[in-house]
Amino acid sequence: MERLPKYIHRSQGTLWLTEDDRDNLKLSYRIKDVLFEETSPYQHVMVLDSWDFGPMLVLDGVVQTTSRDGYVYNEMITHVPMSLHPSPKRVLIIGGGDCGAAREVAKYAEAEQIDLVEIDEAVVRACKRYLPEVAGRDADPRIRIHYTDGVKYVQEKRNHYDVIIVDSSDPVGPAEQLFELEFYQQLYEALKDGGLMVCQSESPIHYPDVMARTYERIGKVFPYREIYTAVVPTYPGGLWSFTIGSKRELFPEGIRFNKPARYANEAILKASFHLPTFMNEMLSK
Amino acid sequence: MERLPKYIHRSQGTLWLTEDDRDNLKLSYRIKDVLFEETSPYQHVMVLDSWDFGPMLVLDGVVQTTSRDGYVYNEMITHVPMSLHPSPKRVLIIGGGDCGAAREVAKYAEAEQIDLVEIDEAVVRACKRYLPEVAGRDADPRIRIHYTDGVKYVQEKRNHYDVIIVDSSDPVGPAEQLFELEFYQQLYEALKDGGLMVCQSESPIHYPDVMARTYERIGKVFPYREIYTAVVPTYPGGLWSFTIGSKRELFPEGIRFNKPARYANEAILKASFHLPTFMNEMLSK
Repeated sequence: MERLPKYIHRSQGTLWLTEDDRDNLKLSYRIKDVLFEETSPYQHVMVLDSWDFGPMLVLDGVVQTTSRDGYVYNEMITHVPMSLHPSPKRVLIIGGGDCGAAREVAKYAEAEQIDLVEIDEAVVRACKRYLPEVAGRDADPRIRIHYTDGVKYVQEKRNHYDVIIVDSSDPVGPAEQLFELEFYQQLYEALKDGGLMVCQSESPIHYPDVMARTYERIGKVFPYREIYTAVVPTYPGGLWSFTIGSKRELFPEGIRFNKPARYANEAILKASFHLPTFMNEMLSK
Repeated sequence: MERLPKYIHRSQGTLWLTEDDRDNLKLSYRIKDVLFEETSPYQHVMVLDSWDFGPMLVLDGVVQTTSRDGYVYNEMITHVPMSLHPSPKRVLIIGGGDCGAAREVAKYAEAEQIDLVEIDEAVVRACKRYLPEVAGRDADPRIRIHYTDGVKYVQEKRNHYDVIIVDSSDPVGPAEQLFELEFYQQLYEALKDGGLMVCQSESPIHYPDVMARTYERIGKVFPYREIYTAVVPTYPGGLWSFTIGSKRELFPEGIRFNKPARYANEAILKASFHLPTFMNEMLSK
């Protein structure tokens, strides 16, 4: 019998990845080829070449980013916090092993130090090799990659960073701790005066409880918080939320932005803070 | 052998609808029950009770609207044009057999006449019976339903409507003609001075060619046009485009809106005109 990687099946002569993280809704992607497969100490890591989205990073069977639409997520998790801080010199990215957020941060001349803390070296290796559209082709000397646990890394930092970007996978498996109240408290301590953090806070459609809980927890730790959205085509439901916790007052209407980008522009960054009524209602409960 | 409706299959003891309109990406919805199935003269019509989205209208195997997220599409295709017109007295909806757009139009006291032209009576009957969350529960005396071909209906109208909403399915099957240049010319003739039309113009991610062509054709007929977006969770990719053609100049920034709604609010209606950079680039070609 043919040996196929985990999560992959063959149907009518072609390969398919079927995401099985949801019980009642399944997305299946037609696959040309398996470019990378490895079971790391943390998770099952693949890069699959798909027909509709090109090469895709797949962790434990769930699509994380694709060469075709990865820029949406990476631009939006990066340029919103970077634009809200007047002088983001030291930036920390937790997770973000696809290197896409680091690549966006590197567009800021004022960023002097960019620390990327990814627990799984296999993810970085796979993305640099097979997802250059996301990871970038050129190394930036300001980016330092630390292969360690983000939670432990943050515990050792005090009053150090201007911006922290928590670019995690879903709150199951290795990323679970990154959604805990204690972790947000550590982020607060690791930030300098006036610093701010952002995290992806899941789908308002499919995981409204995770979104609302994240927003609530961040509000317990930080004096200022905001939630904004972007549309990520390969995430279920499309609509995705991001939550900011800040030591300084936030003025989204005052955002200025002029970096080259494919999704983000100044109007989109400002508009991303205008929420549908159902989201406003969820968050005011 | 078990007789299952077209497009439905059983896997591991449960029913699934797998949308087969796309070659390389398949969405499968877990189904509790088939509430309605009929092959009309125009298409295969079902209402399926799904686990994640409640009752869903499915035409020729493709999900059109659901009780859980149908309001997003119906609010956004309605409240944007209705808010841009200073006095929308006569409104025409072409397609829209789920009756959701008509229900939103009926929120405007100034709307004196609401004509709904749907070719397929089976769609209206199915939605009124099994999708009251979308279709509404109360009949409004201003809404008149005409079971006829939208193209023919419009040809007989001259200088008659303030707002025309083209709420069609994809440009295959019965809706194909609703994306033709000739049809937009007929809409122009059917509109009064200062009138405007809107149509759903497909996904900028999966059907950028349809979107760009629709925008181009409408620009050939109408002196003013705008494109805006909304996020419809059950449409592939989430992000959806709508195109407006208008006889009057359009001022999205001046939109005022105070109707009760679940997705739409004044900030969202205005923000919907701010497009991601990749869309701006597609449209400027």
